[in-house]
Amino acid sequence: MVIGIGDDAAVLRPRAGEDVVVSTDAMVEGVHFRFENQSCRNIGRRALVANLSDLAAMAARPLGFTLALAAPAELSLRRVDDLLAGLLIEAAEYACPLVGGNVSAARETSLTLTVIGAVARGRALTRGGARAGDRLCVTGRLGAAALALAKTARTGARIRQLPTPRLHAGAVLARISAVTACIDISDGLLADAGHLLASRGLAASIDRAAVPRPARFAAACARLAIDPDRLLLEGGEDYELLFAVRGATPSISTLRRRLGIEVSEIGRVVPAGAAAGDSVAPGWRHF
Amino acid sequence: MVIGIGDDAAVLRPRAGEDVVVSTDAMVEGVHFRFENQSCRNIGRRALVANLSDLAAMAARPLGFTLALAAPAELSLRRVDDLLAGLLIEAAEYACPLVGGNVSAARETSLTLTVIGAVARGRALTRGGARAGDRLCVTGRLGAAALALAKTARTGARIRQLPTPRLHAGAVLARISAVTACIDISDGLLADAGHLLASRGLAASIDRAAVPRPARFAAACARLAIDPDRLLLEGGEDYELLFAVRGATPSISTLRRRLGIEVSEIGRVVPAGAAAGDSVAPGWRHF
Repeated sequence: MVIGIGDDAAVLRPRAGEDVVVSTDAMVEGVHFRFENQSCRNIGRRALVANLSDLAAMAARPLGFTLALAAPAELSLRRVDDLLAGLLIEAAEYACPLVGGNVSAARETSLTLTVIGAVARGRALTRGGARAGDRLCVTGRLGAAALALAKTARTGARIRQLPTPRLHAGAVLARISAVTACIDISDGLLADAGHLLASRGLAASIDRAAVPRPARFAAACARLAIDPDRLLLEGGEDYELLFAVRGATPSISTLRRRLGIEVSEIGRVVPAGAAAGDSVAPGWRHF
Repeated sequence: MVIGIGDDAAVLRPRAGEDVVVSTDAMVEGVHFRFENQSCRNIGRRALVANLSDLAAMAARPLGFTLALAAPAELSLRRVDDLLAGLLIEAAEYACPLVGGNVSAARETSLTLTVIGAVARGRALTRGGARAGDRLCVTGRLGAAALALAKTARTGARIRQLPTPRLHAGAVLARISAVTACIDISDGLLADAGHLLASRGLAASIDRAAVPRPARFAAACARLAIDPDRLLLEGGEDYELLFAVRGATPSISTLRRRLGIEVSEIGRVVPAGAAAGDSVAPGWRHF
């Protein structure tokens, strides 16, 4: 960062020959979060994680982010402080400074973030390269965010769970030539597999038993009388990476070692129409 | 633009050795605009102008912008289309493509834009360099936006007026070494002069008769029984550039020729405390 908050605009300096990567995302009170079931700090942290995850999916490193905070006059200064504190915790953790801000009055609270990142020229990892036959893999485990949300809805338990933006994993994946496409899972596995494949006339054939899940997930779902498959396949906001790999190598164990986190193979890319079972048809759940 | 809307993030490509400039601004229904007194197209255009103006004040050229649109479910598709059409008219005019978007539900409509621009490394024009004795100049004329707002408040006339982002003027000013500081006038002349000077222990001594105004401005104000000076000094959203120039050259006529638009000298930078008349004290109207 060359010039931060306080001028008409911020000035950021990518390295020589880098492209600039930009993504924007909004979190609205009552739609994406509630003050009643989560600390303001967690809400702030989660807002930046959601945006950093988009950089991760493009293999970009963060340069900075801007925040537009809209809030009703009656929002307490303490809540504002805690939201900001949460944002700044994640900002420090991932070297993504707040470089611009805007505050405006509104009837409900919302945080609109835009993250700016950088990636070596032409090396951004895109959604675009998958072909039929590619293996489909995910980082980490799915379902934890949806489970926390279901738990708070049924028992009133506060949401403490917080996803991790897979910035390092994305950067490593971009250097593996067999990786043909990548997306972060924000809307849910099936929906985001659709985003990755549907526009290319492709679908996903997913082995639901292979979808990685948190420890004691089935028991937790049973206690809440929830179908675990639904959380695994449709639950969003885990911010793991879903990616396609062409050919038999690198193996899952090689991928795990290189990414430094869990990686699971969960299915295959198939031609649309050939898909069966938990597969994703073109346009399916496409927003 | 290398990758536009449709992937996890957009990819933009600055020229070799350019810095990246980022600014964010939100327009909220009922706070910054009303559907009743302005076409949706004008609201959309104005939203992008406000953001482009921040790039202009930094001497940056636009690379692209992101839009987070929050809207209640009952907002008609026609209004959404017209808002977008307005944004895209300005986007085409100033070569600033829409590169990312986010739509979310909210109780009122708001448009949060983030513009990304580029400027030769280390050459961004900042707020930071003014010294006592510098001449204060503005581009164009002030008061038109405030007059349109006053007119709609009193007579119900629709707002058709639309400011121009001074992108070319900003780029030229950055190449004139005598120009020491620059800001765009979004909050009003006195307020923005305060933003330019107050943190440096400086103030502005402004000759109110020298503030450039639209043709027949006094008569229009008289018809509405409004103090013209108030609109000139405190009216915002004209998005002209206010800048400081060290020394006697370039002359106003040279500045006019180089910028290709009207330029007026309206006062001087003075030490805080020495200011009198319409001057701006440190912290005065600082938000």
